[in-house]
Amino acid sequence: LKQSAGQGQMHPTARAGSPEVAGWLDRARQRVKRIVGEFVDVQCARYLDRLPSPETFEAILVDFVTGGKFLRSTFAHIGLLCGADAGEQALRAAGSVELVHAFALLQDDVMDDSALRRGRPTAHVRLNAWHADRGAPGPGDRFGRSAAILLGDLCLAWSGQLLHTSGMGQEALQRAWPYYDAMLGELAVGQVIDLLNDSRCRPSFAQVLDVARRKSGDYTVRRPLELGAALAGCGAPVVQALTAYGGLVGEAFQLRDDLLGVFGDASTTGKPTGQDLRERKATSVVVLARELAEPAVRQRMDALMCATEVTEDDTARWQELIAATGADERIEELIRDRVTRALHAVHEAPLTEFPCALLHEMAIRCAQRCN
Amino acid sequence: LKQSAGQGQMHPTARAGSPEVAGWLDRARQRVKRIVGEFVDVQCARYLDRLPSPETFEAILVDFVTGGKFLRSTFAHIGLLCGADAGEQALRAAGSVELVHAFALLQDDVMDDSALRRGRPTAHVRLNAWHADRGAPGPGDRFGRSAAILLGDLCLAWSGQLLHTSGMGQEALQRAWPYYDAMLGELAVGQVIDLLNDSRCRPSFAQVLDVARRKSGDYTVRRPLELGAALAGCGAPVVQALTAYGGLVGEAFQLRDDLLGVFGDASTTGKPTGQDLRERKATSVVVLARELAEPAVRQRMDALMCATEVTEDDTARWQELIAATGADERIEELIRDRVTRALHAVHEAPLTEFPCALLHEMAIRCAQRCN
Repeated sequence: LKQSAGQGQMHPTARAGSPEVAGWLDRARQRVKRIVGEFVDVQCARYLDRLPSPETFEAILVDFVTGGKFLRSTFAHIGLLCGADAGEQALRAAGSVELVHAFALLQDDVMDDSALRRGRPTAHVRLNAWHADRGAPGPGDRFGRSAAILLGDLCLAWSGQLLHTSGMGQEALQRAWPYYDAMLGELAVGQVIDLLNDSRCRPSFAQVLDVARRKSGDYTVRRPLELGAALAGCGAPVVQALTAYGGLVGEAFQLRDDLLGVFGDASTTGKPTGQDLRERKATSVVVLARELAEPAVRQRMDALMCATEVTEDDTARWQELIAATGADERIEELIRDRVTRALHAVHEAPLTEFPCALLHEMAIRCAQRCN
Repeated sequence: LKQSAGQGQMHPTARAGSPEVAGWLDRARQRVKRIVGEFVDVQCARYLDRLPSPETFEAILVDFVTGGKFLRSTFAHIGLLCGADAGEQALRAAGSVELVHAFALLQDDVMDDSALRRGRPTAHVRLNAWHADRGAPGPGDRFGRSAAILLGDLCLAWSGQLLHTSGMGQEALQRAWPYYDAMLGELAVGQVIDLLNDSRCRPSFAQVLDVARRKSGDYTVRRPLELGAALAGCGAPVVQALTAYGGLVGEAFQLRDDLLGVFGDASTTGKPTGQDLRERKATSVVVLARELAEPAVRQRMDALMCATEVTEDDTARWQELIAATGADERIEELIRDRVTRALHAVHEAPLTEFPCALLHEMAIRCAQRCN
């Protein structure tokens, strides 16, 4: 197995990049999307009828829950597949992490005061507009922010509900809760750390890498995989391999995100160009570039990050300074290194061919952000 | 039983107002407080070590979780007692609703932009001050608000964790989750409704009563009681009686809150005098007074509620106008009516003497707000 998965000698139906693997991932996403969408419909019908124009709130919830790439539920699903056949109940359980993600996005957009998400207005912007259209008294921006936070809370509550009503057995759930709990705790604390993450505080590259892995990587890859594996009752060697893979691929995912946050444009990220620079986020790319820069260049970077406002011109100049240090190429190397090590961990583990090929494919997609 | 509980002929150890009942309630509160406090300590040690000065965040969490009256966990505890002996595991399960309450308070204070909670600075104010003391870059008020929301999220996640790690059996938990889920869903949607609850929208008294019951009453009394009864496996007649009692006592609780929101001062409420008037909340008292007022008085009320700002003088004048309509006395009558009907529901139910006496005592405390 090790050889066949790693060396391209695998059966053609189960190789990363094959139509079979891509097709499975696509169908799996569609199935989870349907399940989670139906669950949200039922919940909205039960709870939102007391609101004026419930359809507005439902549309926002459905967009946020079903509008993404289903990365986290895919990892939970693959984790399940590492130990069991994943039926409808398993897909419901995997879908619960998409509701955690919707919760995180809804509240993150309020905290970052973001206007766009996936190229469309964010929830608090839409709720503010709805408030204005109604001619409701009081400040609409405050209503928009608060209501978006509350819709996030609703998604968090619904996530736990979808997991414990998934139909998975009580023993499976008991094995899975510790990973679910860890994911939620790490996510909330990671967000607080991120609020304090400002390039003007000049953290070291090592610190920033640590924050990146804990904040986003573990939550995106490692914990969902572990959750799925725990639900399926996988043995320790498999769980350990998934933990190692998850940590590394999660880091690669976040490093790619950091590159996109500096160099990506709206067509790729759905957000304005150089968003992280504008927000003075101390990301891996920004911090590494500063460490690699000559003293004179470093001074120019410091001046940009300490300016009262970061204009569009500043962003363009900062991007050039960063690129000139070679930080972006160095980050690309780190991403390749993480993926290589992640695949090694998986191919060493007692896994069957198909989940192995799925993990291989997902590592590449996370590293390239083409998923 | 009916007679003894309702007519004051009960055994002296189990009568509302007796030292035995008061002593039990006090000890129960202390036990839940210790359990929840220890749980929060363990969670903080596990998750907060990655934050700068974790002791600041821990102090805020501990204050919010253990600084209240433990009303909701007391009701969950009494619900448990209606069907089983409540040991350490039951107290852990009951304690989970205090974490829900901490979550609600932390976020509610941000949404209402409140400076004080229980007579002390709110979490977002304390976090803003911490941010300033550190000399951290960026706006401290935004940090304070966002971090308080996230500490709230942490409490919500921990609540579910405390419930499913309470040690209660899987069957008991399966019976209890629907009530827990309903509580969270109703709470979040109730908060959205409350954001839209503005006296300038002129809702009817019936609408306001409905909002009051759903928003706060069910969450404070009914759902915790049902949760406890479900955990204990109580039969349908007991659950139905607790549902009826919970709806009525919750309404009495909210009506008292509405009276305090207009007439209470900081020594009673821990908040500024006439807080609800200042915020133009369409509470039962405000709306009923407007309905009872003569046209000329109503015009003066409308002018006050539509002023650009509600000053301290305006508040005092508005209080006088409300009192002159007799709305406060009418609300007192409604509170008495709710308590009478709630006690009737309980005394008709197949309950033993002691939980009956506890429910009697708690109904009085909720109605008088001296708990």
